Amino acid sequence: MRLDGRQPDGLRPVKITTNYNKYAEGSVLIEVGDTKVICTATVEERVPPFMKGQGKGWITAEYSMLPRATQVRNQREANKGKLGGRTMEIQRLIGRALRSVVDLIALGERTITLDCDVIQADGGTRTTSITGSFVALAVALNKLVDAKLLGSIPLTDFLASVSVGVVEGQPLLDLCYDEDSRAKVDMNVVMTGSGKYVEIQGTGEDSPFSKDELDSLLSLSESGIRSLIEIQKSVLGAQICGRIAGVGYSAINP
Amino acid sequence: MRLDGRQPDGLRPVKITTNYNKYAEGSVLIEVGDTKVICTATVEERVPPFMKGQGKGWITAEYSMLPRATQVRNQREANKGKLGGRTMEIQRLIGRALRSVVDLIALGERTITLDCDVIQADGGTRTTSITGSFVALAVALNKLVDAKLLGSIPLTDFLASVSVGVVEGQPLLDLCYDEDSRAKVDMNVVMTGSGKYVEIQGTGEDSPFSKDELDSLLSLSESGIRSLIEIQKSVLGAQICGRIAGVGYSAINP
Amino acid sequence: MRLDGRQPDGLRPVKITTNYNKYAEGSVLIEVGDTKVICTATVEERVPPFMKGQGKGWITAEYSMLPRATQVRNQREANKGKLGGRTMEIQRLIGRALRSVVDLIALGERTITLDCDVIQADGGTRTTSITGSFVALAVALNKLVDAKLLGSIPLTDFLASVSVGVVEGQPLLDLCYDEDSRAKVDMNVVMTGSGKYVEIQGTGEDSPFSKDELDSLLSLSESGIRSLIEIQKSVLGAQICGRIAGVGYSAINP
Amino acid sequence: MRLDGRQPDGLRPVKITTNYNKYAEGSVLIEVGDTKVICTATVEERVPPFMKGQGKGWITAEYSMLPRATQVRNQREANKGKLGGRTMEIQRLIGRALRSVVDLIALGERTITLDCDVIQADGGTRTTSITGSFVALAVALNKLVDAKLLGSIPLTDFLASVSVGVVEGQPLLDLCYDEDSRAKVDMNVVMTGSGKYVEIQGTGEDSPFSKDELDSLLSLSESGIRSLIEIQKSVLGAQICGRIAGVGYSAINP
Amino acid sequence: MRLDGRQPDGLRPVKITTNYNKYAEGSVLIEVGDTKVICTATVEERVPPFMKGQGKGWITAEYSMLPRATQVRNQREANKGKLGGRTMEIQRLIGRALRSVVDLIALGERTITLDCDVIQADGGTRTTSITGSFVALAVALNKLVDAKLLGSIPLTDFLASVSVGVVEGQPLLDLCYDEDSRAKVDMNVVMTGSGKYVEIQGTGEDSPFSKDELDSLLSLSESGIRSLIEIQKSVLGAQICGRIAGVGYSAINP
Amino acid sequence: MRLDGRQPDGLRPVKITTNYNKYAEGSVLIEVGDTKVICTATVEERVPPFMKGQGKGWITAEYSMLPRATQVRNQREANKGKLGGRTMEIQRLIGRALRSVVDLIALGERTITLDCDVIQADGGTRTTSITGSFVALAVALNKLVDAKLLGSIPLTDFLASVSVGVVEGQPLLDLCYDEDSRAKVDMNVVMTGSGKYVEIQGTGEDSPFSKDELDSLLSLSESGIRSLIEIQKSVLGAQICGRIAGVGYSAINP
Repeated sequence: MRLDGRQPDGLRPVKITTNYNKYAEGSVLIEVGDTKVICTATVEERVPPFMKGQGKGWITAEYSMLPRATQVRNQREANKGKLGGRTMEIQRLIGRALRSVVDLIALGERTITLDCDVIQADGGTRTTSITGSFVALAVALNKLVDAKLLGSIPLTDFLASVSVGVVEGQPLLDLCYDEDSRAKVDMNVVMTGSGKYVEIQGTGEDSPFSKDELDSLLSLSESGIRSLIEIQKSVLGAQICGRIAGVGYSAINP
Repeated sequence: MRLDGRQPDGLRPVKITTNYNKYAEGSVLIEVGDTKVICTATVEERVPPFMKGQGKGWITAEYSMLPRATQVRNQREANKGKLGGRTMEIQRLIGRALRSVVDLIALGERTITLDCDVIQADGGTRTTSITGSFVALAVALNKLVDAKLLGSIPLTDFLASVSVGVVEGQPLLDLCYDEDSRAKVDMNVVMTGSGKYVEIQGTGEDSPFSKDELDSLLSLSESGIRSLIEIQKSVLGAQICGRIAGVGYSAINP
Repeated sequence: MRLDGRQPDGLRPVKITTNYNKYAEGSVLIEVGDTKVICTATVEERVPPFMKGQGKGWITAEYSMLPRATQVRNQREANKGKLGGRTMEIQRLIGRALRSVVDLIALGERTITLDCDVIQADGGTRTTSITGSFVALAVALNKLVDAKLLGSIPLTDFLASVSVGVVEGQPLLDLCYDEDSRAKVDMNVVMTGSGKYVEIQGTGEDSPFSKDELDSLLSLSESGIRSLIEIQKSVLGAQICGRIAGVGYSAINP
Repeated sequence: MRLDGRQPDGLRPVKITTNYNKYAEGSVLIEVGDTKVICTATVEERVPPFMKGQGKGWITAEYSMLPRATQVRNQREANKGKLGGRTMEIQRLIGRALRSVVDLIALGERTITLDCDVIQADGGTRTTSITGSFVALAVALNKLVDAKLLGSIPLTDFLASVSVGVVEGQPLLDLCYDEDSRAKVDMNVVMTGSGKYVEIQGTGEDSPFSKDELDSLLSLSESGIRSLIEIQKSVLGAQICGRIAGVGYSAINP
Repeated sequence: MRLDGRQPDGLRPVKITTNYNKYAEGSVLIEVGDTKVICTATVEERVPPFMKGQGKGWITAEYSMLPRATQVRNQREANKGKLGGRTMEIQRLIGRALRSVVDLIALGERTITLDCDVIQADGGTRTTSITGSFVALAVALNKLVDAKLLGSIPLTDFLASVSVGVVEGQPLLDLCYDEDSRAKVDMNVVMTGSGKYVEIQGTGEDSPFSKDELDSLLSLSESGIRSLIEIQKSVLGAQICGRIAGVGYSAINP
Repeated sequence: MRLDGRQPDGLRPVKITTNYNKYAEGSVLIEVGDTKVICTATVEERVPPFMKGQGKGWITAEYSMLPRATQVRNQREANKGKLGGRTMEIQRLIGRALRSVVDLIALGERTITLDCDVIQADGGTRTTSITGSFVALAVALNKLVDAKLLGSIPLTDFLASVSVGVVEGQPLLDLCYDEDSRAKVDMNVVMTGSGKYVEIQGTGEDSPFSKDELDSLLSLSESGIRSLIEIQKSVLGAQICGRIAGVGYSAINP
């Protein structure tokens, strides 16, 4: 039995509040247990210099934690004068993950920036940021469809992410901070609605792991991600889901 | 009549949610109209180097805006690699204002850091940060009293802040962003519960102002701050208010 | 009686040497007691990016202290790799104050940068910088009139600044460093030749102040600024004063 | 058939030159095809502040590329004034991977820094850095044994790393730059001598991948890593291999 | 004939005003033609970390130019966030030059920092900084003798510096900016009172030079430096000169 | 007799390997004793902003040391966030020295960047970088001739550099690190094939030096540089040497 009474394959309660911010083209507050992240999607009608003239759009992400998102206060990276390695690694992951399900040509020469600001951290902030950002992104793209700037939402699939790990020999889904700090193996998985992997990042710094352990963790993560995608669909609603280019709606929720 | 139907001397709706964050010693979400700021108070059992060995505590503040707190996305200061002048000016103001009502000797060799993170900005973010931080600070100090680390809350008075300005010749209380951007004169006032000024910062960059205009603005700000302090008292409740060293509770709410 | 024998409402000796630098379009060495600041005005025939295409000019300021301008040597900000909060606050103030009396449309698409470098600091360096910069700015603008690039000097009024404060219960004009460090209330006032306020920045970090104290301080500052503006007029001379667009010369020195 | 005539499961020629640098405690030049990396191991008799007083050692890594290691010259990160996200991600990976096979308690309060400087890059620089750093680390640890500072080499296993990917539908081992830039799926695997995973980082930014593809890639990587570890053993020689604490030498090369 | 009527071997007018700053232990304003530099010497009773525990003192220098010291305004290095290569090169030269005539053991565990701030630049700012800093340093050391912290001034010799160059085929002493910008060969020489070289930095970027040209330039520089040292002696006066440890006063001015 | 058995006027063994890097237009590994530097020349078909529109090319240099090029590991400048003064001084020197023998007009609007990365340092890294960079530059320019982008190699002369110094009263050529650290006088000389000086940088921080000592050192350096240039010619070969514009080949090796 886990600290909060969950089964090994249980997700924490998930709550996604859309339109949390009045200015952003897309925004959510996503809460997964005590982890809370504000994700906003900002649309700009230009692309970064390295993408110019290719007739394609760009998706990028930034990630930050409020100083007191954690038990002990963290110094602001703005005060240190630079981003830390962990922040860079996470925001590169979020951007790469979301680009994998966007048809950049259909998007046109636009940049969408996903800002993931962690208000409170209790494990899984990077995976929660990906799951929430997907919803913020879909909402922002839907506004472009409403404005007749796009004919359909240029997403090729749904996308969500979850953490898994081995704690005291037991594979567990969706680790909270306490479990994460005791995990021997720690893995973040990003998967599409059609069950394909976009990212697998597994590390056994304290204890290398076998192929069998890997397979158990991947199996747990798949079931978790399927549940998260059902929640995303329900939050976005039938109209937005029906506009997602790469996914026939009848296939979404048969 | 103002955009949102307020009278010239009307405050926007104010809502202060305490204990918004599960880790911080004190925290609030303060909403003044559409301006929303998370203020957390972090207590550390040490003082910065320049305060060492004086037998006194220290209060400091940091201020930041999420990138999409505003209509147009702002670049993160962590990405620019340095804090901008506006941020520095604001966080210096918040720290100075709060120190004015703290008995630093009674606090003992502790530092309390107020982090003010603007989630959504619609004018008055610095004054809202001060008003919210006072509550977060009182909650954090009350925990030190609960823990018997302090005998009473070492605050000498209540403290709140509001903006005032002259828009189209009319002095107005508590400017929203739209009014602020049209104001000829712009002033931020910080005042104690006993009606004394802690800070007055008035600027007439686009139009110098007379002593009469100054007096009208100061009078408006005083009535606004009195209302904000009543709200602070109500949010903190009788027990915490009664423990504030510098203020006899019977005097608080006669 | 004050340390140097002044009355509470007495200014320190003021000396303004124009054309102190052979390259700058306008320059002064301003000495107020032992506070010495070199102010130079540099004219450039372009505006910063955010001002482009508006048919207007721009006035900006930078402020710095030599390392040994003070009793204890200060580390150079160039060595720290960034400007401190105090520097940013001061240079924003100087720029804002001077812009308030410049007709930016009449100036045309030009930038004038005021560099205020404190050679020796004995209190009041920011107010002295404003008073000196006004003269350097007028000299530089006069050169543009001489060169027939402008028809008159596009200043709408004179401008000077002084500090005031309450020391041991006594309101005092023009604080030296020793007085400033003992002041309970500290205020900087910027005022125009016609007696209107451009900036009021008062702080009572160590001791909040009443409306009566505020009124005494404002009154002291007004008399000090009137004297400083007389000195500015005398230094600039009748010809330059007569070319200042916003001020009929007969009104200047009746 | 691949560009250079290799089979899909073929490694490029590998050459490891030990003691490449006359000052470092351990050093190699590792060449994998045209990818060339200098790895040095520096031993210092202290640990970073966050490790103090725990009776344990620390292993850390830094990674850099010479400006002309690549086809187009890269700007130096020292000139940009900060490390890029890619660099941070790679050096965090190298450090984490090596720590997984070091007994930090047996190492004692020492820090070993692995510097991986890419002289020429033709794909696989991060995996090559890990494979080379393991050898440099073993050489440096052996010197501590020689100096009787350690009783045996506190490594618990061998460790190497290789890249795999899917190019035009074909899973390939050890991608060169040209293959890497055409790969739909890209994966880096770090594995121990006993065949356990330390890190799996797979990304399908351009094309999500199935469980079957994942399994093929993992299988390819395992065979590649086994070959690399044989080369490491041969380069280190029987004496050093026999001193590695966690690995009975008879088991090394039966 | 040169622009200002000087002979090829003529120095510009030199003026050294001591005690220019009321706080610094030693200070001068040195004017060489239109080049003006404020040099201050700050004494601190500690040495930098790399000098600790050696029983020796340290001399270091910093150099900066006011933005409008030059014909075209220079951006402040504090705004750029870092020192430029030219600044670093110059301040390293100044520090090295002065250390060559200080008995660091006799100085004791103290640091003296020479700040050279160029108020106006017309060629030769680095050589003028060295010549002026020597005087500021002697004045500061003399205060330590006055305070009985030192028995004599721990200088082993006098020191001054001058620039020389070849302009239109003619070797010239003490180049002004206009000459410097036309010079084919440019050399800075630092020499002691006893006629020994401390630094020679000659560069013929636009035109390599022969041994004969070198010898002419060295000869010119020697005569210039002898004159500068006479001026230093006269400014310092007999009492301070007599206290300089390494130089018998009778030898100074026979 | 010197540590390694050399005569006072003996060079260490010199080895120059061309085309050390497969991507750079020109590259060498230069080894002078145990000092090893990789020099690459990168050709870009544009000039920096300050050179635009002048019809001329530009030569610039960057210098760095691997962290373990030295006995004690050096922190990377990329980690410190800025280049140190020594690095800046050296790379400015390398660029300036090479420009002195390039006909920038004949080069056309191109930039050639010399990257000098010190793999192992045993004294003389800056002079070795210059000597090696000249060869890398000639190779890169020769490729432009091969490609018919230039008619001949726009070099006006050969160029090499060596260090000299006075150790225990004895002038020595080509100091190794151990000698350099004991030298009282330290000088770097850059000279052309025709025996003219391009740079002389001599410093006697620990002991000022006489004209006689200077003359001995210059004489030693001349003989060393002549030998280095013979080696450069031999490495480049007759074909490349014959294409060097400013040097008749018959004159090269009579």
